[in-house]
Amino acid sequence: MAMKPINVGLLGIGTVGSGTFKVLQRNSEEISRRAGRAIRMDIVADKDTARAASIVGDTARLTADALEVVNDPQVDIVVELIGGYTIAKELTLKAIANGKHVVTANKALLALHGNEIFAAARDKGVMIGFEAAVGGGIPIVKSLREGLTANRIEWIAGIVNGTSNFILSEMRERGAAFDDALQEAQRKGYAETDPTFDIEGVDAAHKITIMAAIGFGIPMQFSKAHVEGITKLTQEDIRYAEELGYRIKLLGIAKRKAAGFELRVHPTLIPTRQLIANVEGVMNAILVKGDAVGQTMYYGAGAGAEPTASAVVADLLDVARMLASNPDHRVPYLSFQLDRLSDVPILPMGEVETSYYLRLRVVDKTGVLADITRILADQGVSIEALVQKEPQAGEEHVNIIILTHLTREKKIDAAIRRIEGLPVMLGKITRIRMEALQ
Amino acid sequence: MAMKPINVGLLGIGTVGSGTFKVLQRNSEEISRRAGRAIRMDIVADKDTARAASIVGDTARLTADALEVVNDPQVDIVVELIGGYTIAKELTLKAIANGKHVVTANKALLALHGNEIFAAARDKGVMIGFEAAVGGGIPIVKSLREGLTANRIEWIAGIVNGTSNFILSEMRERGAAFDDALQEAQRKGYAETDPTFDIEGVDAAHKITIMAAIGFGIPMQFSKAHVEGITKLTQEDIRYAEELGYRIKLLGIAKRKAAGFELRVHPTLIPTRQLIANVEGVMNAILVKGDAVGQTMYYGAGAGAEPTASAVVADLLDVARMLASNPDHRVPYLSFQLDRLSDVPILPMGEVETSYYLRLRVVDKTGVLADITRILADQGVSIEALVQKEPQAGEEHVNIIILTHLTREKKIDAAIRRIEGLPVMLGKITRIRMEALQ
Repeated sequence: MAMKPINVGLLGIGTVGSGTFKVLQRNSEEISRRAGRAIRMDIVADKDTARAASIVGDTARLTADALEVVNDPQVDIVVELIGGYTIAKELTLKAIANGKHVVTANKALLALHGNEIFAAARDKGVMIGFEAAVGGGIPIVKSLREGLTANRIEWIAGIVNGTSNFILSEMRERGAAFDDALQEAQRKGYAETDPTFDIEGVDAAHKITIMAAIGFGIPMQFSKAHVEGITKLTQEDIRYAEELGYRIKLLGIAKRKAAGFELRVHPTLIPTRQLIANVEGVMNAILVKGDAVGQTMYYGAGAGAEPTASAVVADLLDVARMLASNPDHRVPYLSFQLDRLSDVPILPMGEVETSYYLRLRVVDKTGVLADITRILADQGVSIEALVQKEPQAGEEHVNIIILTHLTREKKIDAAIRRIEGLPVMLGKITRIRMEALQ
Repeated sequence: MAMKPINVGLLGIGTVGSGTFKVLQRNSEEISRRAGRAIRMDIVADKDTARAASIVGDTARLTADALEVVNDPQVDIVVELIGGYTIAKELTLKAIANGKHVVTANKALLALHGNEIFAAARDKGVMIGFEAAVGGGIPIVKSLREGLTANRIEWIAGIVNGTSNFILSEMRERGAAFDDALQEAQRKGYAETDPTFDIEGVDAAHKITIMAAIGFGIPMQFSKAHVEGITKLTQEDIRYAEELGYRIKLLGIAKRKAAGFELRVHPTLIPTRQLIANVEGVMNAILVKGDAVGQTMYYGAGAGAEPTASAVVADLLDVARMLASNPDHRVPYLSFQLDRLSDVPILPMGEVETSYYLRLRVVDKTGVLADITRILADQGVSIEALVQKEPQAGEEHVNIIILTHLTREKKIDAAIRRIEGLPVMLGKITRIRMEALQ
């Protein structure tokens, strides 16, 4: 006995929306062999109805009014691909209030308003699928939410922004300056006209916020994340890192510590021999360390029309399967039962413990090293390696590179303040965090 | 309102069994925060009850009789960790007949008898969890079964046997001969006393059979798989491969072709720049190419007590959540509905299309190359690269390495037969398949 088709209402048919439409059409046979029923695009809302019509033809109803989709009694699942957190939030909450299940790729919305959205969804007994919000088509949300549930997750570290990873690859492989690499990314369509969210780490912070919530069973706490982008990275540091056996990646990091959780995004030196250090271009990869499973890694395209659509449609299959089910049988929104989330705090950045790459530009003068190493010792910062670079011809300053052992951020902050006060110092110290990922 | 705990009956408390017991105990708090109820080890069957007692103490009932577990009305889920396909099969079918859900790590059982087991399970409306059967703790079964369901899977290629990957790493990194590397693997506990299944590719073939079934929606067809191990690999070929920019890995490969599916396990040259070429030691990694998502990769520990237990316990959580559910709401055993599996055939090896590394030992004589390349051309095999190695001092033979373009295996077979008939040939041709993994 064939089950009735599932009706999907789509909000926004841009890049990912049209990818979703295409994948649902092209693989409809494969999908219904899996789902046991058809999943069809019933109605599409987009302000640009002409463009929408050029994509969907007469296979779905069209409207310029998103509310029409959200209020349509025929729609079983609303796919929200509008982005942002004003209209998208309103529509998502309205869809939930109408008893509709929601599938979304909107990491900003979930990182900022996920707690409210999940609470509303629970009250109405509807599902929220958000595989597409992190890592594009990589099934990382499912892996964390369902695949690694036996584990106490120790840490998560991921390259989750393809734009910035592409820029870093360009800078390293071609020796491009940051601005040139960014322009190249824009030319290739990997970066938007306003690339702020990508290059300043905001997008990665949305994603690590979501992964931390699922991995640790804590509420979304985007506002507590430390967010630092790649705009200040120079060729010099990329080259020095390489010489020392490291590669610089923009990582989203979430770590369980005795006193609380670390939640941070910043450029990070990681050993080149690590698999994840070799993830180049727009690809994404997420490392997850669990107490039972050890390290696992998930790799794939983190963006793009069809990779992201792959995640949206997988969610549609999951939701379709569980449509008439008892909510008790469903996977909890954040892997953990909503009423059993932990209130262990996110640690302030000063309490974060990691190791550091420091680059100091100093006057080439006797006694400089003694002063610097004395200050570090006073702050209890121990040195793993120190390299003094030869001065360039005709220059009187030298670069000193210091790699530290694990230390607390507030100690390195104090040491940096004091070192920067030394008269031999030329400019600010460059500080990049390091992770061994062991 | 707290739900009643789930009672697990364990068959076999060896390495993975005791890992499962430990993980369930250590992470019981974390697990019940996720599952919304406790999952407890209720009864354990093992012939060695004394050893079993030393592991579980008085936290679970013990028996030497596995049937007792399978027939116990109190047991909700049977975890089968006995291995092999005689007793394990009987017990699994008996558990199913008794209406119990089964979680198993037994790839041999599923690859050989999966079709029968899934049919029986469907008739009784019980679930079969088998995440632990492939890739240890890597959630690859879940990713294929649920995470990539939007895709038409094009191919799957995986390093899924840690023992043989360890041996290959030892051979390459330390220049060890196969036998020495195998002994080292045994010394470290990575290889069993009888390592046949690991080094002859049988274990990998079990796993790729299972992944092909889930990825393509076809029945288990282990008997149709081409199975070739690593026992004949030499230092010479590993070095030559490296010089040419390739690494040799034992891959399980499943590919969709117009005429049918390829299903094969053999040593494979893959480009060193590929991430998966750099997976070393006992680690596993699986590449999956989907038409929408593109390439994705899953990496982690493919064996060991707790990594495998991680998969077993994740299955327990999944099954526990769906315990009283309508079977329509459950994920189909093989991702596709059992009554909608495809009968597209597995291609015989002669029809497989790939490229080849050939090493020929020949007398160093004028005209040899002309004869060899003529035969290849006659068979329609086109050459991508040809390297003639300098003869070693005091030797009169030379090694010729040929890399071919894509060709059909039966053509290369015919060419090899003819070339081996040339009087200048010294011994058999070494033939290793290559995959670009694009």
